[in-house]
Amino acid sequence: MVKGLKIATGNTGIKYKNRDDLLFISFEEKANVAGVFTQSSTAAAPVLWCKKNIHNFDAKALIVNSGNANAFTGKAGENSVLKTANLVADILNCKKEEVYISSTGVIGQELDDDKLCTAIRKIQNNDNSYQCAAKAIMTTDTKHKIVEKSCFIGDTKIELKAIAKGSGMIAPNMATMLGYIFTDANIDKSILQILLKDSVEKSFNSITVDSDQSTNDTVLLFATKKANNNIVSDANDENLVDFKNLLDEICLKLAQMIVVDGEGATKLIEIDVNNAINEEQAKKIAFGVANSPLVKTAIAGEDPNWGRIVMAVGKSCEKVEQDKLQIEIGGQTLTKNGGVNPDYVEEKAHQYLKNEKVKISIDLALGKANKKVWTCDLTEGYIKINKDYRS
Amino acid sequence: MVKGLKIATGNTGIKYKNRDDLLFISFEEKANVAGVFTQSSTAAAPVLWCKKNIHNFDAKALIVNSGNANAFTGKAGENSVLKTANLVADILNCKKEEVYISSTGVIGQELDDDKLCTAIRKIQNNDNSYQCAAKAIMTTDTKHKIVEKSCFIGDTKIELKAIAKGSGMIAPNMATMLGYIFTDANIDKSILQILLKDSVEKSFNSITVDSDQSTNDTVLLFATKKANNNIVSDANDENLVDFKNLLDEICLKLAQMIVVDGEGATKLIEIDVNNAINEEQAKKIAFGVANSPLVKTAIAGEDPNWGRIVMAVGKSCEKVEQDKLQIEIGGQTLTKNGGVNPDYVEEKAHQYLKNEKVKISIDLALGKANKKVWTCDLTEGYIKINKDYRS
Repeated sequence: MVKGLKIATGNTGIKYKNRDDLLFISFEEKANVAGVFTQSSTAAAPVLWCKKNIHNFDAKALIVNSGNANAFTGKAGENSVLKTANLVADILNCKKEEVYISSTGVIGQELDDDKLCTAIRKIQNNDNSYQCAAKAIMTTDTKHKIVEKSCFIGDTKIELKAIAKGSGMIAPNMATMLGYIFTDANIDKSILQILLKDSVEKSFNSITVDSDQSTNDTVLLFATKKANNNIVSDANDENLVDFKNLLDEICLKLAQMIVVDGEGATKLIEIDVNNAINEEQAKKIAFGVANSPLVKTAIAGEDPNWGRIVMAVGKSCEKVEQDKLQIEIGGQTLTKNGGVNPDYVEEKAHQYLKNEKVKISIDLALGKANKKVWTCDLTEGYIKINKDYRS
Repeated sequence: MVKGLKIATGNTGIKYKNRDDLLFISFEEKANVAGVFTQSSTAAAPVLWCKKNIHNFDAKALIVNSGNANAFTGKAGENSVLKTANLVADILNCKKEEVYISSTGVIGQELDDDKLCTAIRKIQNNDNSYQCAAKAIMTTDTKHKIVEKSCFIGDTKIELKAIAKGSGMIAPNMATMLGYIFTDANIDKSILQILLKDSVEKSFNSITVDSDQSTNDTVLLFATKKANNNIVSDANDENLVDFKNLLDEICLKLAQMIVVDGEGATKLIEIDVNNAINEEQAKKIAFGVANSPLVKTAIAGEDPNWGRIVMAVGKSCEKVEQDKLQIEIGGQTLTKNGGVNPDYVEEKAHQYLKNEKVKISIDLALGKANKKVWTCDLTEGYIKINKDYRS
């Protein structure tokens, strides 16, 4: 139980019928808030709203609607955000800038803010569960996503609860990914921001290529301050180690849930690049492999066609010494001296690929930098879902 | 008829049965040769061989085998290339460096050079057609690709004949693309290189993202010098205008054939980005859209889900002013003032997308730079082909 917040969900009638598509979270008192957002140059109106306010305003509420992204909706989109924020500010008697807003769904269609506002008014007194919240923000997700953990700051028990939506895709971050983490810890806003940014880099941003982002990606961390822990003075305070680790764990867990729930996905694939010259190289190669449709379809077919991994490593155009390059699937070394390892047993790799979790390790033997990223396989199911998305 | 060369094709028995998988072209006299190759850092042995020789040696022969890429095959791969070059040099009584070699097919499997050499010996006296040549180099292609044109340099008629293989994919250049252009023109090697590079940039490299390249991509231009045209002194000689335009046309035609023959593809999509700040921005955005699986699946489904185009433009993180951004599908303007154009008729766009050729225009209204690229739609067929590629 994260103390200090109330969850309300309901249906707006905008796109989905017979399911909740609206989440309204209100905080008893102002919560400290940190956020990480899409870098897209066509970011949606609610993202621009949150980005503008996050450094100056605390949070009294969070509104999320699913089915319509309110992205590329021009002046009308801005007005919808303003209207929503004003309504919630009225209801909660707070500043409009204290109302955080997210949208997810189809891009380029005006959001029916009348329906949205009517629904907000209607559900304001509801009292729903995290499960309802996690379900209300889903779009093409097949499963709702919740993680719950607790830890200590000093002697004080701290609760964390988190929900997310998003389903991994060919380039996973192209689907809007939303994540909300709630804690009753009392941690300063600026420290929260440092911790969140760091956790997101190792999780949500490791299922995401920088150049491939949705218009609406948002991760927000709210701290209600109700736990009465001792205040920590900086992000490196040793009393925060537990909390930091837990935040990492929660973000990674949610990120992996998103990958596993990939549109049509049947496998979670971990790409682990080691001993690169620098982190940039490690990242470029890891994402090159993780985003390779040829690698992803081969794994879908449980075909250890590791030549495609070599291709994907090479396409980065990063310095690679073929003789040193070592590729492993499921712990079996595939390569040696710039060719196939004579001891490699293809049948063993084929059997390994029948697993739901698959690990590919790439050792460049050039330096000391490492990067782990996660992706899913690419199946006919992906195409089917995305061809028919709007129909 | 391009004078001065002989085509021989046959079967090596390496991978394919009941079809030719070997092309052996010999030039009566040394031909001038120019080449453009993959930038992959895991480039295949035959690519490294050609790259090493192209600036110093003319061509007496071209050998291409399909079914095995001789990529990531280490020392053995290098030896196979050397063995092949030595054999052909023996047969033709030329230097081994005058033998140009390409391979295409599965990566990471040693090439059976005994079979290859036996087949080369066997077919050396064959006399086959361009059609046979174009068929022998195919892998997952469903159609062979030939273009034939003629033009004038001064008063002299010049013949050009070209073949290619490759089938467009999600990132089209990830399939090995091979292209060979033959002409009887007498044009200096250094001029040929300038012309080819320029043509490839506007064609093969406009269905290709720099960061996404196969281990084996190769385009070679051979000039047999048999046409007895007046020698031109530089690449800008006005007598070359016709030839240059034709080379552009041939390369573009072949590149589009590759896209249209995309694995599972049903549509040719042209992405035309205009009025960007600079060419780099235009290119980044054009390829961002062209490689977006969400855009490509929407078009496969004939769904004018243009919000996905907005997303794909934005994910480049390039400066974009949403209010100015103008997107057209089939000549119909979809966007206005950062939102949907009120005059946009979705049914009209839906009908337009039933065409086999689809054009998406993106006007950034920020500068003067333009870029056109081509891609194909993304269908279930792509997944099916690539899951089962090796089986």
